[in-house]
Amino acid sequence: MAQVAIVMGSNSDLPVVQGAIDQLKSFGVDFEAHVISAHRTPQRAEEFAKSAKENGVKVIIAAAGKAAHLGGVIAAYTTLPVIALPIKSSFMDGLDSLLSMVQMPTGIPVATVGVNGADNAGILAVQMLAVSDSALAEKLDKFKADMAKAVEEKDKKLQDELLNKA
Amino acid sequence: MAQVAIVMGSNSDLPVVQGAIDQLKSFGVDFEAHVISAHRTPQRAEEFAKSAKENGVKVIIAAAGKAAHLGGVIAAYTTLPVIALPIKSSFMDGLDSLLSMVQMPTGIPVATVGVNGADNAGILAVQMLAVSDSALAEKLDKFKADMAKAVEEKDKKLQDELLNKA
Amino acid sequence: MAQVAIVMGSNSDLPVVQGAIDQLKSFGVDFEAHVISAHRTPQRAEEFAKSAKENGVKVIIAAAGKAAHLGGVIAAYTTLPVIALPIKSSFMDGLDSLLSMVQMPTGIPVATVGVNGADNAGILAVQMLAVSDSALAEKLDKFKADMAKAVEEKDKKLQDELLNKA
Amino acid sequence: MAQVAIVMGSNSDLPVVQGAIDQLKSFGVDFEAHVISAHRTPQRAEEFAKSAKENGVKVIIAAAGKAAHLGGVIAAYTTLPVIALPIKSSFMDGLDSLLSMVQMPTGIPVATVGVNGADNAGILAVQMLAVSDSALAEKLDKFKADMAKAVEEKDKKLQDELLNKA
Amino acid sequence: MAQVAIVMGSNSDLPVVQGAIDQLKSFGVDFEAHVISAHRTPQRAEEFAKSAKENGVKVIIAAAGKAAHLGGVIAAYTTLPVIALPIKSSFMDGLDSLLSMVQMPTGIPVATVGVNGADNAGILAVQMLAVSDSALAEKLDKFKADMAKAVEEKDKKLQDELLNKA
Amino acid sequence: MAQVAIVMGSNSDLPVVQGAIDQLKSFGVDFEAHVISAHRTPQRAEEFAKSAKENGVKVIIAAAGKAAHLGGVIAAYTTLPVIALPIKSSFMDGLDSLLSMVQMPTGIPVATVGVNGADNAGILAVQMLAVSDSALAEKLDKFKADMAKAVEEKDKKLQDELLNKA
Amino acid sequence: MAQVAIVMGSNSDLPVVQGAIDQLKSFGVDFEAHVISAHRTPQRAEEFAKSAKENGVKVIIAAAGKAAHLGGVIAAYTTLPVIALPIKSSFMDGLDSLLSMVQMPTGIPVATVGVNGADNAGILAVQMLAVSDSALAEKLDKFKADMAKAVEEKDKKLQDELLNKA
Amino acid sequence: MAQVAIVMGSNSDLPVVQGAIDQLKSFGVDFEAHVISAHRTPQRAEEFAKSAKENGVKVIIAAAGKAAHLGGVIAAYTTLPVIALPIKSSFMDGLDSLLSMVQMPTGIPVATVGVNGADNAGILAVQMLAVSDSALAEKLDKFKADMAKAVEEKDKKLQDELLNKA
Repeated sequence: MAQVAIVMGSNSDLPVVQGAIDQLKSFGVDFEAHVISAHRTPQRAEEFAKSAKENGVKVIIAAAGKAAHLGGVIAAYTTLPVIALPIKSSFMDGLDSLLSMVQMPTGIPVATVGVNGADNAGILAVQMLAVSDSALAEKLDKFKADMAKAVEEKDKKLQDELLNKA
Repeated sequence: MAQVAIVMGSNSDLPVVQGAIDQLKSFGVDFEAHVISAHRTPQRAEEFAKSAKENGVKVIIAAAGKAAHLGGVIAAYTTLPVIALPIKSSFMDGLDSLLSMVQMPTGIPVATVGVNGADNAGILAVQMLAVSDSALAEKLDKFKADMAKAVEEKDKKLQDELLNKA
Repeated sequence: MAQVAIVMGSNSDLPVVQGAIDQLKSFGVDFEAHVISAHRTPQRAEEFAKSAKENGVKVIIAAAGKAAHLGGVIAAYTTLPVIALPIKSSFMDGLDSLLSMVQMPTGIPVATVGVNGADNAGILAVQMLAVSDSALAEKLDKFKADMAKAVEEKDKKLQDELLNKA
Repeated sequence: MAQVAIVMGSNSDLPVVQGAIDQLKSFGVDFEAHVISAHRTPQRAEEFAKSAKENGVKVIIAAAGKAAHLGGVIAAYTTLPVIALPIKSSFMDGLDSLLSMVQMPTGIPVATVGVNGADNAGILAVQMLAVSDSALAEKLDKFKADMAKAVEEKDKKLQDELLNKA
Repeated sequence: MAQVAIVMGSNSDLPVVQGAIDQLKSFGVDFEAHVISAHRTPQRAEEFAKSAKENGVKVIIAAAGKAAHLGGVIAAYTTLPVIALPIKSSFMDGLDSLLSMVQMPTGIPVATVGVNGADNAGILAVQMLAVSDSALAEKLDKFKADMAKAVEEKDKKLQDELLNKA
Repeated sequence: MAQVAIVMGSNSDLPVVQGAIDQLKSFGVDFEAHVISAHRTPQRAEEFAKSAKENGVKVIIAAAGKAAHLGGVIAAYTTLPVIALPIKSSFMDGLDSLLSMVQMPTGIPVATVGVNGADNAGILAVQMLAVSDSALAEKLDKFKADMAKAVEEKDKKLQDELLNKA
Repeated sequence: MAQVAIVMGSNSDLPVVQGAIDQLKSFGVDFEAHVISAHRTPQRAEEFAKSAKENGVKVIIAAAGKAAHLGGVIAAYTTLPVIALPIKSSFMDGLDSLLSMVQMPTGIPVATVGVNGADNAGILAVQMLAVSDSALAEKLDKFKADMAKAVEEKDKKLQDELLNKA
Repeated sequence: MAQVAIVMGSNSDLPVVQGAIDQLKSFGVDFEAHVISAHRTPQRAEEFAKSAKENGVKVIIAAAGKAAHLGGVIAAYTTLPVIALPIKSSFMDGLDSLLSMVQMPTGIPVATVGVNGADNAGILAVQMLAVSDSALAEKLDKFKADMAKAVEEKDKKLQDELLNKA
């Protein structure tokens, strides 16, 4: 049963959204993913949002571009936390998507991550689940440690490069 | 029976929206107005939008601020033309509202007017109705002529001021 | 006889504007298209705008980039609804065109769609005509249903992809 | 024991942050609040972030303005979900705070709400807790229902006003 | 006979435009001023622009706000240099006016000054006239010298203030 | 003897600036062109600006990118009209150059054209010269007529294309 | 003998610039301050910049608004580090000043601080001097410790307020 | 022993940062370079910053993109001057990095250079060192003279090109 549901406005968003999918897989979190359009399939969006909680979903990730209403439309019909992932399309590197998502009116928040920040959307979902899942919390600790190691590796590589050039 | 329906996200938008109401009254166009929130009363928004056409509504004006989804949410449920009126709230003079409205995805257009451009929203609604209402079209011709006269009056006043100063 | 007239500032806008032409053709709406420059052929713009209504035109689409005055110049000479289509040229993804169009002064509205949103300009024109043309309104209903089906197809395709990867 | 910890860069942020405090109180969620500066008391920020989880904190809200690093600095030292609340100070209505928060690099997400969106920061924290707290989830359902009622009340009031004017 | 003609979209622009008037008066340059709207009195704008040169006008200053088409509309009908003065109204401190003016298409330039930069519009007009008027050129030299003296006076005043505080 | 002097910050600006050169050649206006950097060769900039008028120069075009001070630095040392041509380099399509040029302080105007609007810079220079050169003014009339014809040609071509497709 | 020289475009900048003066006084750093305009007194700017080093000045702070060229003009004539302080005037909260300063071309850097960040300009000047002045470096350590204490005091005050409200 | 330390958030920043390295090498200034992430290796950032001064470092250059906190995090732990180099990644040409760096709160300045302005970051570091190193100051004078010569060479080349074309 999926703990995280990802919705995206179009298949064309999948290459970006894949980052979130990869993170969820990597943390071993069950997820589902759907193409749902806030404007073209509003009824489907409503049904999805209304039934998500009873279907076992705990966190929703909504990815959309341009006038990105998907996060808001989903959030209107559920009290589950909704992570809004602004997709960069063709105008000012996604400033339209970002503002359409982050500036939600009082009472209906969405948790916005950076433009095209799909990995972070996935990790944030994991963090929310980890609040009540200590095994997942441990995985996050390890993930953080691994990131630090990776940076240290990069630093070592840089030192080698600088030495070689000198 | 109302030909134009105005929806706004909150009563607090009324002082701005009043410009549209005044224009519709001035042209003798029957209208209705509602407070409907895309996010707080999504079901109401859906019902309104779905039934608008059969209730005789021909044009809808949707006014909202911040992440202004109201126009898009209404347009998702109707094929009537939706005029989107971005309201300036507290961020970059309404750039958030403007982009949230105007950048609608392909297939679900809204007709966006300027930020806080309520008068123009009303006049645009009248123009749409006038496409098939020659009496209204004549009123628009008169309105245009009156505006021209008003500018000419202002010019005369300016000439007087310049003469008096000289 | 054309019900919709499309004007564009230059032939170079045609690849973008084509989206509007395709939509109008698809809905079976008669249209005409012209290259008219607000600044290079102002007299032609004036004549076009003044005679549009008596020539049977009901809605005008004006496409232009940069300091995009074409919509405003046309709207100055007619009371027909003018749909303004901002074209992205080379500065900030068309923010210049968008603001030059949408921020029209009180009394002379234009109905602005998104940057390069030519399909939406065409569909919005159809929606305006459909206010008094029930056959067209039915086509719009079908168009909306087809869009929903297309999204559902995409969702099915996504489910297959996810299954295949799992 | 506090489930939510609020950190803000300065007491001067308190009037805005109060919205989050009010929401948490209203939902009966225990919280703590601190003035911690990412730049003036970095050691304190580190200690706070490192010990938050073992102190029972489940969600952190970080409010800051200008080059708003507080959310990122906290998120660097914990795997708890961090809600970033951009405060509007004196430049472009908080665009600096918003971008400094939302554009976090891969691996260290923060959940950004709108500029000055303190109420939403509080509600989002409640939503995160409610993932594993059904009593809180029920309160959120009631909260949503109350909001809807409030909008309906506003609509009734609008209808009265329109009638009285007519 | 006026050498410089100032046109503005509305009397409400006069307090800003006054800066240009004051500069022209101060340089002893004959001018005329008109309220002409590109959108409400397009015919008047055309007539004005077409006849300006034969009326002896050598430079035109066009002041307008929002979707500021006035400069472009005038420039479309004359080859006289047109100075465009963007007026700040209510959106992003006049970014809309600025872009609507400065981003003119190839072939129809306008000479844009800063937002609300009316004094500079006046001085620029004088500089253009001074190209073929050596008496005016001498006045400009004196003007420049006076400005330098004024800055030096301010510096002296600052030194006094600093001494008094020390 | 050159009537127009073009200065640019670097040879790398030449491909853009060429548009101005072409226009001046096409109008038969004598010009000179220089690479002068406001920041790297300030003394040269000063000498150039101070001597321009006595060398017979009547209009200066200053092209620069990024923090584009060249126009302002030249204008500081001369009362000749200075046309500022913002060059797009690598940040926000030249918004930095545009604002660095157009927002000049009171007393020292520059005449700013659009970003990369080199042709318009050249034509504007011609317009300024034509104020006192009727032969040049006639050429501008012809230029305007030719532009109109070119647009009409494009329109004919469009009509053919539309017919062929129908 | 002044180690830091502050230049500002106008006396009207003094209320903002005062923050830098106060910091320099507080650290016991000798300074001088001048009103110098890059555009109105370019010769004075040149002389000041050329002689600053031999007059014992080690760091220059240049404060200016709008098209803020002062920092660049000074930096063109000296190799001393120039701190650029963008002043907010009337357009987009000083975005024009910020970009006019920070986007300097390669070879002529300025050290830009935040818009109206006068205190930081002063502190940054002290930091530069402290590179070779250990007494000053110690004062900076104390300053940093005092800031931390002040934040801790604010935190204590907040705890009291929260307790009193509870 | 390194006088300048360069820190960058990732190896991927190296191609841009190389400009700073090249300048430091060219001036014969000893430097070190590290990959340190404010968010992934915060402890490392802290240790680096705390020990930099006692390790003989006099100036720090911090390069980062997106929500670029690295400069601020370093500056929080040292009183050495920190030069902040905003890296352009994928959003609005680095506006996010620029604002995240330059808008630092009072008390903790960073010296920000232009987006991707690595050469200038290096040169600015040299200028800071040259305040107390007259040999370095002389090199800067020569550097400035060489730049001027290079511009003059470019001008000569331009004159040749213009002659050849004529």
